[in-house]
Amino acid sequence: MPPSAGKPSFRRIALIGKLGTPEIPASLRELDAFLKSRGCDTFIEKDSAAELGVRGTDYAAMGGTVDLAIVVGGDGTMLAAARNLVRAHVPVVGVNQGRVGFMTDIGHRDMQSGLGSILDGKYSIEERALHDGEIVRGGQSALRTLALNEAVVGKGSQGRLIEFELRLDDEYIYTLRADGMIVATPTGSTAYSLSAGGPIVEPSVRVIVLSPISPHTLSNRPVVIRPNAVVRIAIAKREQDALLTIDGQEGMPLQGGDVVEVREGRFSVSLIHTPNRTYFDVLRSKLGWGR
Amino acid sequence: MPPSAGKPSFRRIALIGKLGTPEIPASLRELDAFLKSRGCDTFIEKDSAAELGVRGTDYAAMGGTVDLAIVVGGDGTMLAAARNLVRAHVPVVGVNQGRVGFMTDIGHRDMQSGLGSILDGKYSIEERALHDGEIVRGGQSALRTLALNEAVVGKGSQGRLIEFELRLDDEYIYTLRADGMIVATPTGSTAYSLSAGGPIVEPSVRVIVLSPISPHTLSNRPVVIRPNAVVRIAIAKREQDALLTIDGQEGMPLQGGDVVEVREGRFSVSLIHTPNRTYFDVLRSKLGWGR
Amino acid sequence: MPPSAGKPSFRRIALIGKLGTPEIPASLRELDAFLKSRGCDTFIEKDSAAELGVRGTDYAAMGGTVDLAIVVGGDGTMLAAARNLVRAHVPVVGVNQGRVGFMTDIGHRDMQSGLGSILDGKYSIEERALHDGEIVRGGQSALRTLALNEAVVGKGSQGRLIEFELRLDDEYIYTLRADGMIVATPTGSTAYSLSAGGPIVEPSVRVIVLSPISPHTLSNRPVVIRPNAVVRIAIAKREQDALLTIDGQEGMPLQGGDVVEVREGRFSVSLIHTPNRTYFDVLRSKLGWGR
Amino acid sequence: MPPSAGKPSFRRIALIGKLGTPEIPASLRELDAFLKSRGCDTFIEKDSAAELGVRGTDYAAMGGTVDLAIVVGGDGTMLAAARNLVRAHVPVVGVNQGRVGFMTDIGHRDMQSGLGSILDGKYSIEERALHDGEIVRGGQSALRTLALNEAVVGKGSQGRLIEFELRLDDEYIYTLRADGMIVATPTGSTAYSLSAGGPIVEPSVRVIVLSPISPHTLSNRPVVIRPNAVVRIAIAKREQDALLTIDGQEGMPLQGGDVVEVREGRFSVSLIHTPNRTYFDVLRSKLGWGR
Repeated sequence: MPPSAGKPSFRRIALIGKLGTPEIPASLRELDAFLKSRGCDTFIEKDSAAELGVRGTDYAAMGGTVDLAIVVGGDGTMLAAARNLVRAHVPVVGVNQGRVGFMTDIGHRDMQSGLGSILDGKYSIEERALHDGEIVRGGQSALRTLALNEAVVGKGSQGRLIEFELRLDDEYIYTLRADGMIVATPTGSTAYSLSAGGPIVEPSVRVIVLSPISPHTLSNRPVVIRPNAVVRIAIAKREQDALLTIDGQEGMPLQGGDVVEVREGRFSVSLIHTPNRTYFDVLRSKLGWGR
Repeated sequence: MPPSAGKPSFRRIALIGKLGTPEIPASLRELDAFLKSRGCDTFIEKDSAAELGVRGTDYAAMGGTVDLAIVVGGDGTMLAAARNLVRAHVPVVGVNQGRVGFMTDIGHRDMQSGLGSILDGKYSIEERALHDGEIVRGGQSALRTLALNEAVVGKGSQGRLIEFELRLDDEYIYTLRADGMIVATPTGSTAYSLSAGGPIVEPSVRVIVLSPISPHTLSNRPVVIRPNAVVRIAIAKREQDALLTIDGQEGMPLQGGDVVEVREGRFSVSLIHTPNRTYFDVLRSKLGWGR
Repeated sequence: MPPSAGKPSFRRIALIGKLGTPEIPASLRELDAFLKSRGCDTFIEKDSAAELGVRGTDYAAMGGTVDLAIVVGGDGTMLAAARNLVRAHVPVVGVNQGRVGFMTDIGHRDMQSGLGSILDGKYSIEERALHDGEIVRGGQSALRTLALNEAVVGKGSQGRLIEFELRLDDEYIYTLRADGMIVATPTGSTAYSLSAGGPIVEPSVRVIVLSPISPHTLSNRPVVIRPNAVVRIAIAKREQDALLTIDGQEGMPLQGGDVVEVREGRFSVSLIHTPNRTYFDVLRSKLGWGR
Repeated sequence: MPPSAGKPSFRRIALIGKLGTPEIPASLRELDAFLKSRGCDTFIEKDSAAELGVRGTDYAAMGGTVDLAIVVGGDGTMLAAARNLVRAHVPVVGVNQGRVGFMTDIGHRDMQSGLGSILDGKYSIEERALHDGEIVRGGQSALRTLALNEAVVGKGSQGRLIEFELRLDDEYIYTLRADGMIVATPTGSTAYSLSAGGPIVEPSVRVIVLSPISPHTLSNRPVVIRPNAVVRIAIAKREQDALLTIDGQEGMPLQGGDVVEVREGRFSVSLIHTPNRTYFDVLRSKLGWGR
């Protein structure tokens, strides 16, 4: 069957698996064979390839080479892969073998039929905005990073609440003592931010979600703000134990006086969806909403 | 002092007071004298005028006549006045004598200085979108209304939870048993929706907030959606005791099978703000956020 | 198999079904035949009997006659039956055919085996305390009632929030504007109170749970108090549209100035449980807690 | 004025101040002079004494020596002092100079009058139960501690959620992935547990409060359980970054497979209250409840 008119067809495909997970290599092999049977070239990500005992391709080499990346694992694997591929503008689709699947559309049982449909051009593309995160220390940029779900300024190894000041652009908003503050994208609104009491935000909406974690003041409720604001979280001078965590993956120590800046970035991830599942289908299934 | 360049100056001013409240007539008289001393013509709203024992102007006559309305009371009075004036495009400013003041910028003590500044052209204008609400019964429109804060589909006089189906445009989202559902504007996000667990949304953000009230399913959390969606709440056929309430003011009985439709409307209210208070200043003060 | 030593055996058994529900009469007939085959005498509750076209027994006649009541339906049916039987000290067991089942232990599929076990003496008895509710109007008792789940002082047919004062014994606690106030038993902590943000309370714990519904002040969080307090909710004098609802079933209009008093009563319901399901098993299953 | 009949009079009084805080030494000196003028012997705690440049008394020596301890600082100082004095059965009263004051009854302005009343025998005594906390590692007790507010099993320096199993006595309750779990006393119900969504529990009620922190599953709501249960939190074997924090003060690293056991202990703290403030007075003031 020829691909549908007007949509790019995928022929050079990266395969990325969750590492250190027994059942993943078999899935990757099955997938590799299936894609080759469909006439595709495959490029297995380096670390995943090592687990299969074959030669792999590193992320840097994928940009300009592959036109689709298939991620086998859970949302965490998807997050990591998406962040690695975003600068190369490679669209991504997820095959769920993990516990949750807000971003992984295809269940393992439907792997061949779901990916087959996509190869046939039956898919939709959804752009998900990323946030730029930056640590400003002594007026200098100390670190830059990208967040697909959220940037979290949280307490560190002592387990005590932290104090910080929230500003939007240059406007002072409030001072808070809390376990931390989550700055989430709409994509991330169903992840950590939801656990902390934040709202669910449709991914097509352009906003930034600010969800305080266990705030000392009960009226410090989640706030949804304009997408073009720069969120500035200024760690109190005397704090010695704060941490910046991005997408639940990297933890970077913060110092008293550091300012964490988060803003909507210029990068976005292209998520490939099979046609028969909408965003709210996923929510209904994942959250057990009543049918 | 001449008005600042480029901003309309206000000279024909409507006065609207909270009804049935002892201290309001005195405030209106003070205000009336003050405005006249500043060379303005004043038009006291009919019902308020009756409480003062003078002749008044009804809302219909204000459009095309007045260029500013001053509301003396609380947020409820402000809501009612704004809804009455929206079609006439009269900008509104509130003087707070009630319990809450998310929309009433000026405290009674600062009435003359605050309004004086505004007459001097020192003010900003903020547009707040209204929602169109409609009851569709048997395929026919049974009622149309406007909401500045929120439309609430709730339980009626029996006090039992109600069952309804939520759709966005034509997509089925979920079926819920709950005390009700709040469809809020960003303006309304700090009103009833906040009490029900909804997020605070900056007024400049264009979204619709859906906050279920005491939902039977705990995962039915508030959802922030695209502004161009039509929210459809279809009352279960067997329900006999549901109610549509707009801005906490009008209660309209609903029948089983009714569909309540809410969408962003074409009307907006122009709120006049004194220059020295921002939205977040108000939140900090009203919600007791930490300084 | 003889009943276990020390436990009462059940031989005279009332059958109570959810009314107006197509599949219930068949279940009642199956149950009736099963119980007779086990040598029991059965007494079908009057309204249920009418649906079967047979002669029935009214609640008043059951006290002193039956030694167990089997309720077929959901938690609502169970609540109503338990309240009707509490003064007669008839223990109750529920067979679930409804949507929720915090109190109905036995699924329809396991009806015969589950009840068979109970007839064999394999069961446990759990006492669940009821609250006494009373409306005091002008210093006089205007109504007395019993609550197994909760007494709710809520808004009425206008859909507006109500204002009331909360006192414990004679101590003033706070004044609140809200959709209402839930005074729940531990049994009721997993019902309406949970939807309103209240905690789950183990049924063996003797406390009263106070959960405000959509409170205007965000810091008015649920409070767990001593079991021997009298909870007094005094409706503001000017309120004209409040309602007392007991166990989601009876709605009684309240007047401005009414005081609703709720206290732990002297009645309790004996719930019969099959041995293989604990309270937390039920929570895990009903709430989808992680295994 | 003689002390009231039947109440112990306080004559040998320990003084304990918040450390490293500029205004505390002056308060301690004022207090010391005041108490001596009232004929009391004073014993300044060792570390506080060092800040005053005088000789002090260590906690161990206070037991059997002093009959009251006055703590000047905030709730944190009060918590630490109470924990240090609990085994010696020394009653404690707090003078608030910190940010919060759920346990510190007397404001700095009323220091002399408030304490004067207490010396006159005008006070009440309230017992607050403490929890015993224990880390069981490989079947052995690795650490024992006391908690007046709460024991928290939380994430450590990596900032990732942790997985653990909750058991009550030997019953499995659930497995949870979350930022952590708070096991709070009624006293602690207004501290961290409240920020995490837990209920307020009157201190006279004997229960244990379990409040999950940002739980991955939204239905994992706070649970109030029987006071004689042993709460067991078993850290998942593969976890390498969990932390036990007691009363927000001590952080102890946990290992995968560790079981944290918390139970109501045999110790309690005697809080001395001035007669004119009740528990709910404090809540109303601290939480801004409506009057």
